[in-house]
Amino acid sequence: MQKSIKKFVLKSRPSGEVSADNFELVKEDIPELKQGEILIKAKFLSVDPYMRNRMNNVESYVVPFELESAITGDGIAEVIDTKSDKFEAGDLLVGIVPWQEYAVIDPKKVEKIIPDENISSTAYLSVLGLTGLTAYFGLLDIGDPKPGETVIISAAAGAVGSVAGQIARIKECKVIGIAGGEKKFLYLKNDLHFDEAIDYKKTPNIRKELRNICPNRVDIYFDNVGGDISDGVFYMLNNHARIILCGQISLYNLNRLSMGPRLYPQFLFHRVKMQGFIVYDYTDRFTNARDQIKQWILDGKIIFDENIIEGFEKLPTAFLGLFQGENIGKQLVRV
Amino acid sequence: MQKSIKKFVLKSRPSGEVSADNFELVKEDIPELKQGEILIKAKFLSVDPYMRNRMNNVESYVVPFELESAITGDGIAEVIDTKSDKFEAGDLLVGIVPWQEYAVIDPKKVEKIIPDENISSTAYLSVLGLTGLTAYFGLLDIGDPKPGETVIISAAAGAVGSVAGQIARIKECKVIGIAGGEKKFLYLKNDLHFDEAIDYKKTPNIRKELRNICPNRVDIYFDNVGGDISDGVFYMLNNHARIILCGQISLYNLNRLSMGPRLYPQFLFHRVKMQGFIVYDYTDRFTNARDQIKQWILDGKIIFDENIIEGFEKLPTAFLGLFQGENIGKQLVRV
Repeated sequence: MQKSIKKFVLKSRPSGEVSADNFELVKEDIPELKQGEILIKAKFLSVDPYMRNRMNNVESYVVPFELESAITGDGIAEVIDTKSDKFEAGDLLVGIVPWQEYAVIDPKKVEKIIPDENISSTAYLSVLGLTGLTAYFGLLDIGDPKPGETVIISAAAGAVGSVAGQIARIKECKVIGIAGGEKKFLYLKNDLHFDEAIDYKKTPNIRKELRNICPNRVDIYFDNVGGDISDGVFYMLNNHARIILCGQISLYNLNRLSMGPRLYPQFLFHRVKMQGFIVYDYTDRFTNARDQIKQWILDGKIIFDENIIEGFEKLPTAFLGLFQGENIGKQLVRV
Repeated sequence: MQKSIKKFVLKSRPSGEVSADNFELVKEDIPELKQGEILIKAKFLSVDPYMRNRMNNVESYVVPFELESAITGDGIAEVIDTKSDKFEAGDLLVGIVPWQEYAVIDPKKVEKIIPDENISSTAYLSVLGLTGLTAYFGLLDIGDPKPGETVIISAAAGAVGSVAGQIARIKECKVIGIAGGEKKFLYLKNDLHFDEAIDYKKTPNIRKELRNICPNRVDIYFDNVGGDISDGVFYMLNNHARIILCGQISLYNLNRLSMGPRLYPQFLFHRVKMQGFIVYDYTDRFTNARDQIKQWILDGKIIFDENIIEGFEKLPTAFLGLFQGENIGKQLVRV
């Protein structure tokens, strides 16, 4: 096995839009394996919008990345060598791992994947991983969908949105997805079978469009984007509507505050509940949630798509693509 | 009894700031009392910020006032004559009544006050009325205060805020009230015994001030005002904070949208719950809540203040004063 391995470190913190220059590919030797540790080889690494916030040096629900240290994120890896009795060589693991070809890690940060011939292991980074679980807990716990209610999903063709919308369909809601571009529009309509889809790039006035297609207004808004799109939805909220604040990707790359209309009176008059959440608050329920999602997949009620880019060195490219809205489904990199 | 009586009708809908010109004092004859109706004489009438929204011709949680028709609001009245078996002459009633010296009404819209020598009947328009109940349900049901938590109240010297803050004190929270002017500042500190008070007229940067006095950040924000003050508080929210959206008085008189920073990412990172509510959603629990508030008053744990202006013709003046921040406690008019 090679002794010198590649890794991506955070070279500088972005001011505003993130760029490839913020990452640096460096080489280093693999450290000695100490008692209790394992040596892993990365197989698939996940890029996710929340990681943008870790690049800032500000308090958030996740600690910031450190300069000159490896980026870390969700990944699937294989155990190569072990001085821990928790895993054996050859085990496939999922969890938070560094952006390195090989790494020595504490086995507490990962868990073993039990192979299943019906579902690819990459599902543990998508529909059965943090994005699928985010969709599950956000929609069901905060949204509490009832049959017949109208549900809007923003970034609906993305890893979280596509699953949230399908679960809303399972719960017999009317589901409207918002996404950018003809390809995603058709994906929402033809592949995910949402009731309606809106291509925001072709829709200057989201509010007006929703007025046409939501005669009963909006009961649940699963928000992954924020900004103007969300403001358009906020005008259409029904009494006792729920807003699931899951992501605000349209705001993450700004280096100044985004200004918008103060629509709090709308929330008040309509008795709206808006709630932010983070999937890590639900870790003790992950296993049951995964079992349920798996069952829906086997029953053909949920499909999932992964956009896999080949090559470890493409990690920054894949990450930047998230902010260009390039991916349908979960964005992954095969190492 | 006089046959011609005075009433206030909505003469025109305000565009932006409400003014006395929007009201008109007219005289009319008292209509015949029909079977099932009662004739009442107004004793005290309440002016409340939410009525500003009823002056607009837009959908809200309350139907708009009609032009040329009597303004209606919360009031206490005495039964003068009755063709209903529900009430007797001399009964004291509370409920939604028109801004008229005398009125013939449907008895279903009012309920009888049982006199209590320990508590003035006007309490049924303040601490035991809709504003006290609003404070009660907003703070306890949405806020869910825990001992030791930090609670911020805006418009803290007002009818709702003063009660909400005192209930938070009963629940062993650290309570900080925000209000405008030295008189209110001293009222919060010396009369209501809040832990801290902020005179926003002397405090250009609410956020900075809160950073000094809330080392553990803010767990509950009971918002009656909206706008810049609320934005300052939003920066200081703790993880799992709750925002009770009760009023947005700073925005009600604007004839265009108010713009402000989009702080939704703060809500997301800190897993904040923001919820709008209306006291009428809790009508089936009014009796129990009133009993509890009454007990707190008798135990000396809640004090309440009423600012009573004399004379039916002062109704518009009293109402306009709400938006100048003139009142401490509940603003009432004695007819």
